[in-house]
Amino acid sequence: MATLWKSRYAQRTQRMGRSIIRELLKFTAQPDLISFAGGLPAPELFPTERCQEAACRLLSEHGAQALQYGASEGFPPLRQFICDQMSRYGIYAQPDNVVITSGSQQALDAIGKLLINPGDRILIEEPTYLGALQAWNAYQADYIPVPIDDDGLCTDKLEPALRSGPKFMYVLPNFQNPGGTTLALSRRHDVVALSNRYGIPIVEDDPYGALRFTGEHLPPLVALDANLQATVGLNGHGYMEGNVIYLGTFSKTLAPGLRLGWMVAPVEVIDQVVMAKQGMDLHTSTFTQMLAYEMVKDGFLDDHIRLIRKVYGERRQVMLDALQRYFPEGCSWTRPDGGLFLWARVPDWMDTADMLQEAVRFKVAYVPGFAFYSDPNRGRNTMRLNFSCEQPEKIEEGIRRLGKMLEQHMADHLPKVVAVPATVPG
Amino acid sequence: MATLWKSRYAQRTQRMGRSIIRELLKFTAQPDLISFAGGLPAPELFPTERCQEAACRLLSEHGAQALQYGASEGFPPLRQFICDQMSRYGIYAQPDNVVITSGSQQALDAIGKLLINPGDRILIEEPTYLGALQAWNAYQADYIPVPIDDDGLCTDKLEPALRSGPKFMYVLPNFQNPGGTTLALSRRHDVVALSNRYGIPIVEDDPYGALRFTGEHLPPLVALDANLQATVGLNGHGYMEGNVIYLGTFSKTLAPGLRLGWMVAPVEVIDQVVMAKQGMDLHTSTFTQMLAYEMVKDGFLDDHIRLIRKVYGERRQVMLDALQRYFPEGCSWTRPDGGLFLWARVPDWMDTADMLQEAVRFKVAYVPGFAFYSDPNRGRNTMRLNFSCEQPEKIEEGIRRLGKMLEQHMADHLPKVVAVPATVPG
Repeated sequence: MATLWKSRYAQRTQRMGRSIIRELLKFTAQPDLISFAGGLPAPELFPTERCQEAACRLLSEHGAQALQYGASEGFPPLRQFICDQMSRYGIYAQPDNVVITSGSQQALDAIGKLLINPGDRILIEEPTYLGALQAWNAYQADYIPVPIDDDGLCTDKLEPALRSGPKFMYVLPNFQNPGGTTLALSRRHDVVALSNRYGIPIVEDDPYGALRFTGEHLPPLVALDANLQATVGLNGHGYMEGNVIYLGTFSKTLAPGLRLGWMVAPVEVIDQVVMAKQGMDLHTSTFTQMLAYEMVKDGFLDDHIRLIRKVYGERRQVMLDALQRYFPEGCSWTRPDGGLFLWARVPDWMDTADMLQEAVRFKVAYVPGFAFYSDPNRGRNTMRLNFSCEQPEKIEEGIRRLGKMLEQHMADHLPKVVAVPATVPG
Repeated sequence: MATLWKSRYAQRTQRMGRSIIRELLKFTAQPDLISFAGGLPAPELFPTERCQEAACRLLSEHGAQALQYGASEGFPPLRQFICDQMSRYGIYAQPDNVVITSGSQQALDAIGKLLINPGDRILIEEPTYLGALQAWNAYQADYIPVPIDDDGLCTDKLEPALRSGPKFMYVLPNFQNPGGTTLALSRRHDVVALSNRYGIPIVEDDPYGALRFTGEHLPPLVALDANLQATVGLNGHGYMEGNVIYLGTFSKTLAPGLRLGWMVAPVEVIDQVVMAKQGMDLHTSTFTQMLAYEMVKDGFLDDHIRLIRKVYGERRQVMLDALQRYFPEGCSWTRPDGGLFLWARVPDWMDTADMLQEAVRFKVAYVPGFAFYSDPNRGRNTMRLNFSCEQPEKIEEGIRRLGKMLEQHMADHLPKVVAVPATVPG
């Protein structure tokens, strides 16, 4: 009878698949393997004690509320806290501009539900966050990829892409996943200006923004857009009336296991998302929302973020130094100012997906870069390396193994420079 | 600029709406009002102490795991626990047949994502669970309603509906929301036989099955279907290969604020749902999953369910007695054997949506029945009454107020029996 089900969902799930990544990463579940493949925060930094105190207090003082159904838009004090927190980054939202989501992954799904009809085209960075493609493939989206370089989205290539009429553009300005790149300030202004000129809204995904190790914080697109709206007199009804949906999360600052993210948008958009969210899961766990609020309400988050920044910044440096030391000539990589990932390129003729099994024999793993492209034939010579989750000595050792594997592979497979035979004169 | 967004989602959200219910129920947020409108479990029964102990222990012993990302299919020991629990109800599933969802609302959304294309028709009970309609409206489903009576879905009306080719049928066999009705055993066999004859799968939603106050437990459709598959030799690969997706939840037995439900289905279906769930929210909170497991793993759930049954059973009886005492002639209601709700009918000419404001003046509230119909012009003389969430003396008093309101309304509005004038002979 299972065939009956299959006939019912066949056309849908072809597009949802990407199971090749799951299959590839199954190899990597070995105890002595050093994995740069995951996207996990460092578990030793999780605030478990703070969480325990908060859970005890919460259940003593507000147990019945924490375990009951709640509002679809989220726990009001947490929404207020998020507003206060975001105002430091120049985002002046009211709680009505905020909906709590079950991780920012759910926000991506809600955006798909609200905005994407089959065949709609979404402008994406190339490469981009795999989870966004997964969420939107289910709505049968098509993509208009625009490349990134070391300064993020190549805005000089943006206009032709905008002219072809995407429903919205999806941008990760800070320490992009997977690229590790940061969108330069002048390009941020370009993105916002072009968005307004062409009437194409922006979905700004900012999971890592608070985790900057080096350099100065840059204003988020949603803040630049709000300024622009005010300047040209389009914004008569308050600050959050603009062209940007902004996504934030506690996954990288508190803990991903709580599944807590948020969306900031004009009230009209939030109202629609709240309606959609009722059908999606009624609301995000009251318990985890109140627990997070209990953890952060007295100013704990700033100190904790400082700690995370310090540790990840050190690990990034270890990885950069090791890449310099161990990676063979012909390879290059980004130097992220924050976040969890960097992006490495090997020579064009190499295929990182094919090489993953070799890497696993060397007891090291990564994510083959093609996974982050809408067209899996692209990015074949790239890989994403996570530096947040392994200890420094493991990072050093893992990059050493990876470098060795690459050298070996090059030695075994390097295309020989074949002497072109002199053409026989006719 | 918000108009820009509006133009982008307009066609979608017309169908997601149903905000009329939210608007109606806004009236009911008054401290001295007795509300039968919610669908809330009794908060005084929440196992807050047990939850507190479990949270402390969990964070001491497995804090890093509980706060980290987890598998999309859910926490394995919890899936095993669910299998053990369900086997008592004749459902012999393996953990591979189970995916943990963020409440069973998310399972409904996942089903929509997997199975519903715009214009697909879903066979539903009439009335049915509002949240399912909300979830599936977003996928632009159409509906084929089949009425229920005191024995649940009217299976004698099922065949013509199945012949018109629904994608699947959606059935709540136990203490239906909103009807409070239970599908009779012979009808369960009919539903399963017809499902197999016409090749139309079943989505069986069973949030209240464990909360039976009176009568004998009846086998779930998924168990009857598995038996039938085995009998006719269709099931060669184990028990869970059938025609039914079964949905369960901890919302009514532990606490809704945790947002924990589950889906049981053939492995092939589960694999697809897990893929979809990655795009929806990556996974349900590791923390709440491990917390629930920590709460129930030593056999606490049975005792706790016994307590809930006892309390809700008493409240149901108080409501039934009060209805008998205070509701005017011409009204009728169901006598649920379990669950949280009963369903009342007033005379045909009355409109419960129109009357809600009157009821609020009498300091009592309910959900107008039309909300549970795919066609809001139907069920206008019905209402859903929740008996789980108010104390017995409040239930008695609330029904007294509601009866008084109905009497008053009848006296003010009863269509006069107009004497038909004798026709003048020609």
